[in-house]
Amino acid sequence: MECIIRPAQSADCDHLMGMIREIAEYHKLLDEVKINSQVLRVDGFGGDPFYQCLVAELAREQENKQGHLMGYALFFFGYSVNTGRIVYLENLYVVSEFRGRGIGKKLMTEVAKVALARGCAELKFTVAEWNGRALAWYRQLGAQDKTEAGGWHCVELGGEALHRLAGDGR
Amino acid sequence: MECIIRPAQSADCDHLMGMIREIAEYHKLLDEVKINSQVLRVDGFGGDPFYQCLVAELAREQENKQGHLMGYALFFFGYSVNTGRIVYLENLYVVSEFRGRGIGKKLMTEVAKVALARGCAELKFTVAEWNGRALAWYRQLGAQDKTEAGGWHCVELGGEALHRLAGDGR
Repeated sequence: MECIIRPAQSADCDHLMGMIREIAEYHKLLDEVKINSQVLRVDGFGGDPFYQCLVAELAREQENKQGHLMGYALFFFGYSVNTGRIVYLENLYVVSEFRGRGIGKKLMTEVAKVALARGCAELKFTVAEWNGRALAWYRQLGAQDKTEAGGWHCVELGGEALHRLAGDGR
Repeated sequence: MECIIRPAQSADCDHLMGMIREIAEYHKLLDEVKINSQVLRVDGFGGDPFYQCLVAELAREQENKQGHLMGYALFFFGYSVNTGRIVYLENLYVVSEFRGRGIGKKLMTEVAKVALARGCAELKFTVAEWNGRALAWYRQLGAQDKTEAGGWHCVELGGEALHRLAGDGR
């Protein structure tokens, strides 16, 4: 099986959205997914992109076998006041039937290359505790668990609280 | 005391860098700060900005009293595959002698306004466990602790591990 890693295109958004819903469904979190493929298209491929995405594609000769996307890495650039430029890896996913073939590693490798090419010193991301296999895999790649090592907590402020904070009267 | 919140400018970078080092020094983490004010300037105010920053400034009549910056909020835009556009708040800081006067809240309010104006549904950030006061404050504003509630871990991959992953032979 040959796997090509390439930047996602606008035309991939339906397929990407399918994978995003697949993950959410698997984790019984489908009601937390508020976006759709049209939103994904505008936010990634409009004039003001909010994310970058690499996809893992089956090489052409096998394309008719499974549909062509086997996984993706969605990320964006950001900053650390300690280390400077960073890449924040929002999501790395490989479709279940294609796991164990090094596709996740290939995607991570390409993200690392993009990061270094843009002068980023770090990848940051979050992993859920119940996903112990993923945590172990990232550790094997040399990642540090800052929650375990330094007691860092992931915090989110959204919905009504965000509107209340902004004082927009909602 | 009057406090103005405004976007940071290139000329603020020396002062910003001073505050960044102040935080790090306080936490005995000064050796983790790899950037300087020149880097901060290029990365925030060059042709390809990696972050946005708001500063809290003493109103002019009192300016000569303390130097003019009392705090800052440094953030960047990003993406969630669940909720779409987000703001990632890298750092919120108020100089110790100006705390307890609502400056942090003012900065957060402005970040929330910027977020909503750009169509972001969430602020994401990380807080260290030992900083219980900050955690409590963010909770009061309506933030959710995803580490406590859902077991999310903050993970980082940098330095030699990043170069190894990219396969650049280091």
